[in-house]
Amino acid sequence: MRPRLNVIKIGGNVVDSPAMLQLFLQNIAKHPTTSVIIHGGGKIATQMAEKMNIPQTMIDGRRITDEATLDIVTMVYAGLLNKKIVSKLHSLGRTAVGLSGADGNVVLAKKRVHPTLDYGYVGEVQSVNGQFLQNIIDQNLTPVLCAITHDSQGQLLNTNADTIAQEVAVALAAYFDVSLIYTFEKRGVLLNVDDEESVIKELTRAAYSKHVELGAIHSGMIPKLDNAFKAIDDGVKSVKIGKAEQLTQILNDEEGTKII
Amino acid sequence: MRPRLNVIKIGGNVVDSPAMLQLFLQNIAKHPTTSVIIHGGGKIATQMAEKMNIPQTMIDGRRITDEATLDIVTMVYAGLLNKKIVSKLHSLGRTAVGLSGADGNVVLAKKRVHPTLDYGYVGEVQSVNGQFLQNIIDQNLTPVLCAITHDSQGQLLNTNADTIAQEVAVALAAYFDVSLIYTFEKRGVLLNVDDEESVIKELTRAAYSKHVELGAIHSGMIPKLDNAFKAIDDGVKSVKIGKAEQLTQILNDEEGTKII
Repeated sequence: MRPRLNVIKIGGNVVDSPAMLQLFLQNIAKHPTTSVIIHGGGKIATQMAEKMNIPQTMIDGRRITDEATLDIVTMVYAGLLNKKIVSKLHSLGRTAVGLSGADGNVVLAKKRVHPTLDYGYVGEVQSVNGQFLQNIIDQNLTPVLCAITHDSQGQLLNTNADTIAQEVAVALAAYFDVSLIYTFEKRGVLLNVDDEESVIKELTRAAYSKHVELGAIHSGMIPKLDNAFKAIDDGVKSVKIGKAEQLTQILNDEEGTKII
Repeated sequence: MRPRLNVIKIGGNVVDSPAMLQLFLQNIAKHPTTSVIIHGGGKIATQMAEKMNIPQTMIDGRRITDEATLDIVTMVYAGLLNKKIVSKLHSLGRTAVGLSGADGNVVLAKKRVHPTLDYGYVGEVQSVNGQFLQNIIDQNLTPVLCAITHDSQGQLLNTNADTIAQEVAVALAAYFDVSLIYTFEKRGVLLNVDDEESVIKELTRAAYSKHVELGAIHSGMIPKLDNAFKAIDDGVKSVKIGKAEQLTQILNDEEGTKII
């Protein structure tokens, strides 16, 4: 039997709140299964840009990343937030190793090319160095990976944390039985978006197609779930989606939606 | 025979200049001996504090580190500069791993206590996790360590990079024949501070005592050299001091002052 591993993306609302972050990390630290943690920190980067009078442009939820903005996200994600998470985990009894994608070449990316828009220094993941991460995990250390990658030519790139989480989960599926966990504001995938009690506990591909057809699952959830099924196709054992405050219950399959 | 290792502190004047940093990293990348790199980045942190209107106080060359200032040095050292150095090294053919002292508990520190002054979140090094660094080096990776440490209770601490370099060199002397290299603006320890040709090529403790007694070596050089001899006492093979632009020649014992 292969060891189990949780790849946990910390939701934006958690990173932004010191109290929620503390609780979230406590829940990770006390869970017996080893974790890999992935985080961004967009809201704090935006606040930092405001303090420094560097205007920010968002298109379809993506940050246009000029050189000054790349410096800010590198400082905030790889510096401020990554090291705060690492030091907090230490105080909770877990020794962590904070990484950007450049460290150990752990996430190699290339600059996004778009036919009409210049996103600037935004990266698309090319490959994940699973062996390097496995070596860290083997030393009983918790990798904490931020949403900065590099292109191997000396350029850092701002990269979507959800995508990094997915690619890391797939790369580590070669060594572990991986659960990929996304947390957000809701209790899971809801059959009725206005009813928090309508959580779909387990979602198969067949059921997903039917829910989309009937219009119960729509808009923003569709790319999220398409990516989740893609991860399953690529060897990840399960993808779980649920409320950040219920992380322990999600990890124990008591809450959230489990995609299998 | 044990493998050789260079522990190289990047001088402040190098970190501040993209062109000098590029040249410095090229010289490290092309040298056959494995390196561990240590850096701070005080001038850039000061500029960042100015942009954000956070006043800075320096006492005896040490930065009084309140919470806002700790955030800035964490962002600048562990984020911006560390990841720039790591990604540049990659483009030069070396895969690097950027670390703060919190990562892998690599540099544990405690908050400095001073009888009359509150330095704020400033750390004094307690221990270095040499085994963790050795494991990175064994994977043919270059550790790049910034001047941020932690206290294992969740607190990050701003810590002197020269001291970290010395402590890392001593910890790694258990596994390697270590040379500790400090670069600065001068060609080495000078017998006459106004004469760049008066470099002392090799300095023994006996000769050092004599030079101090006669007043040739004085002021700022004395704590630097006391620390260098301390490192030798603690197992480091040699400490080399020289001009940043001459790094290759210093590594090859052709330039600079070698303390043995």
